[in-house]
Amino acid sequence: MVERRKPIWIKEATEKVMEYKKRGEGETVSIHECDDRYLYAPLIADHDVPPFDRSPYDGFALRAKDTENASRENPLLFEVIDEIGAGQVSLQKVGQLEAVRIMTGAQIPVGADCVIMLELVKELTEGGKKYIEVKRTLQEGDNISFQGEDTQKGSPLIDKGERINPGIKALLATFGYGKVKVAKKPIVGIIATGSELLRPEDDLEPGKIRDSNGYMIESQVLRTGGIYKKYDNCADDLETLYQAMKTALEECDIVITTGGVSVGDFDYLPEIYQRLGAKLLFNKIAMRPGSVTSCAEINGQLLFGLSGNPSACYVGFELFVKPYLRYWMHSDRPYTRFITGVLKSDFPKPNPFTRFVRGKLSYAGGTVYAEPVGLDKSGVVTSIAWADCLIVLPGGTRGYGEKDEVDLILLEDQQGSEVPWQEKKLSKL
Amino acid sequence: MVERRKPIWIKEATEKVMEYKKRGEGETVSIHECDDRYLYAPLIADHDVPPFDRSPYDGFALRAKDTENASRENPLLFEVIDEIGAGQVSLQKVGQLEAVRIMTGAQIPVGADCVIMLELVKELTEGGKKYIEVKRTLQEGDNISFQGEDTQKGSPLIDKGERINPGIKALLATFGYGKVKVAKKPIVGIIATGSELLRPEDDLEPGKIRDSNGYMIESQVLRTGGIYKKYDNCADDLETLYQAMKTALEECDIVITTGGVSVGDFDYLPEIYQRLGAKLLFNKIAMRPGSVTSCAEINGQLLFGLSGNPSACYVGFELFVKPYLRYWMHSDRPYTRFITGVLKSDFPKPNPFTRFVRGKLSYAGGTVYAEPVGLDKSGVVTSIAWADCLIVLPGGTRGYGEKDEVDLILLEDQQGSEVPWQEKKLSKL
Repeated sequence: MVERRKPIWIKEATEKVMEYKKRGEGETVSIHECDDRYLYAPLIADHDVPPFDRSPYDGFALRAKDTENASRENPLLFEVIDEIGAGQVSLQKVGQLEAVRIMTGAQIPVGADCVIMLELVKELTEGGKKYIEVKRTLQEGDNISFQGEDTQKGSPLIDKGERINPGIKALLATFGYGKVKVAKKPIVGIIATGSELLRPEDDLEPGKIRDSNGYMIESQVLRTGGIYKKYDNCADDLETLYQAMKTALEECDIVITTGGVSVGDFDYLPEIYQRLGAKLLFNKIAMRPGSVTSCAEINGQLLFGLSGNPSACYVGFELFVKPYLRYWMHSDRPYTRFITGVLKSDFPKPNPFTRFVRGKLSYAGGTVYAEPVGLDKSGVVTSIAWADCLIVLPGGTRGYGEKDEVDLILLEDQQGSEVPWQEKKLSKL
Repeated sequence: MVERRKPIWIKEATEKVMEYKKRGEGETVSIHECDDRYLYAPLIADHDVPPFDRSPYDGFALRAKDTENASRENPLLFEVIDEIGAGQVSLQKVGQLEAVRIMTGAQIPVGADCVIMLELVKELTEGGKKYIEVKRTLQEGDNISFQGEDTQKGSPLIDKGERINPGIKALLATFGYGKVKVAKKPIVGIIATGSELLRPEDDLEPGKIRDSNGYMIESQVLRTGGIYKKYDNCADDLETLYQAMKTALEECDIVITTGGVSVGDFDYLPEIYQRLGAKLLFNKIAMRPGSVTSCAEINGQLLFGLSGNPSACYVGFELFVKPYLRYWMHSDRPYTRFITGVLKSDFPKPNPFTRFVRGKLSYAGGTVYAEPVGLDKSGVVTSIAWADCLIVLPGGTRGYGEKDEVDLILLEDQQGSEVPWQEKKLSKL
């Protein structure tokens, strides 16, 4: 009954999953609903920025050549022939020794070719007419933001597949995207398996525990930008689980099960994959936790079998499911982002397998540090809650010590990576 | 008409805002709806973890003392009297030289006091009875996870005010929170002011631009965890703006305006604050951008007047509005998180004011670097979209160079900080 499984490298497992990557469809939403969605098409400037020659300051627009002889000793008077606010356009043409009072952002009136700042002039009224005293020379173009100097109409500003943050939303508004084409959210089916599983609202019973993985995955799916469909927990019963999987495959884009993947007698997943006619991509990975992560494919649809162990389940999602979903939503940086940082603790015991230790980032003097969370017993329960990174300790014959440089997978990152984390050296497994 | 304003330090402005901090109410939501919400009460363990003595492996539960004489040379036979899966409880009592086959996570049967792993025994069947061959001695407690060894019933595991991430959601499920008490989302009123403002769906008109700040703030509010109520853009007209502000104050918890705060002729906000009977907390801060950020208070309700300049508006929100909202949702780390990192560019020109430069983080060899985004012209438009940090360059008589250590405000962080960023030295303003 005990099945022998052949472990593969994380690199291979990632490649096998991404062999089946696909881009999902798009849909159009109101700009008010676009936050955190992925752009389905590049964001294009629909006009020049600035859209017209404008003033970056409150001041007076005038002709530079009229200031040629202005100086402290020789202040020149300009007649203020109009005042315009932002959004207004002066109908006056600025002539010799004339000026138009102009607000920040307002369009430069015809005839004027420079702006003098409000603070640099003295305002006077004489005989019911307004004047300003100018005591310096100006050059043509002084204090003018020229049409198109920042961005020209038609320029692509943001690539498709970028996730919409406050800055991108501002650009969408600026460039007339009252409606935004975004990637449709992939629907992720979630089935927690195991006869021991209760729901959060159930009272505890002897021998049973409440399902937590299903809820954790809900949250991971949402954080990635997908939506989920959660099915009832499945007891370890072949027929029930088979039916649930069939339904989920029809209703969802991908299906995640948690539990039922180890080699225990009651783990029916291998048999169900077979009955469904799914092709097994892998069922063991050389990593800890998460070694029993599995993935199967049927008609291009993926079934992820994550471990019933919460940490293993969590890691399995971040490494294998998330990139698949981000790619689906057109991201070109689908993989979980990783950086290098410095260890704050010793891990003296060598381990043949690559380990992903739940860690917490800290920063001091320009250096990124990471230390494991959950070293005390109660931390075992809360370590996923506190972790903001996974400390990657590659498998091998040596342990790791404080101050060693290690890779850190960022859990709260939304930017992603073009390349996946993978083993630097592949020996024989 | 040009009003003189007294700038204050960022530190003072932060303090003035937080003088009016308050904690919002709570509400109860289904666990399925709790993602990204802030806990209104600490998360308490409602049972021991593990909830009963259980096996961490697939194996056989037996009595340690029966293995006393077991060895390679002297394998002992144990009769397998029962098999239990996870979620099942054996009704058998394990006696002398008896064993119960047990799955990962299953409860240790009565009588047994240790577990031997599946891989370490040989299974036999003789005369219709099942046996295992044990070739080593075991100690009482071997391979047993004891009830309460990770967490004891009643322990507080996560503080109130923490934002619910996948790990916290898993804990909520584990500890029976089918319904979760979370902080109510503060309602933020948003009014963009300026006669030059069009909506994204409008065609451009001479002298006008489309509002982008209002949309950017929507997104910043959502990212912080609040909800927004967006009002129609207000032309620079005293009465309209006054009425809009009055309505917003009635319908929202706080109100943000953008634009209308500089000293231009058409900036009505100071007068409106007066008509509303609001107390001005500040209207100028010694910083760039965002120097014209203002804040006023009426009956304990705050009115934030953010600049009409997009970068200034963005920074004003992150520094002053976000902490207020996070505290409202019971966070004890309400402030924007900052770390130290290393500059990747020169800023040779000294500036008397503290500058917040939109930057991008990168990491190499354990060091955090930051470089400004938007140095080219088109970057001016897109810099907020690309920034994931604000590079803080304190005001003073010197410039900054590559390799200088600087503070970096993290824009995508969800963890926050107990203390605000503030000037290290306060001289006279």
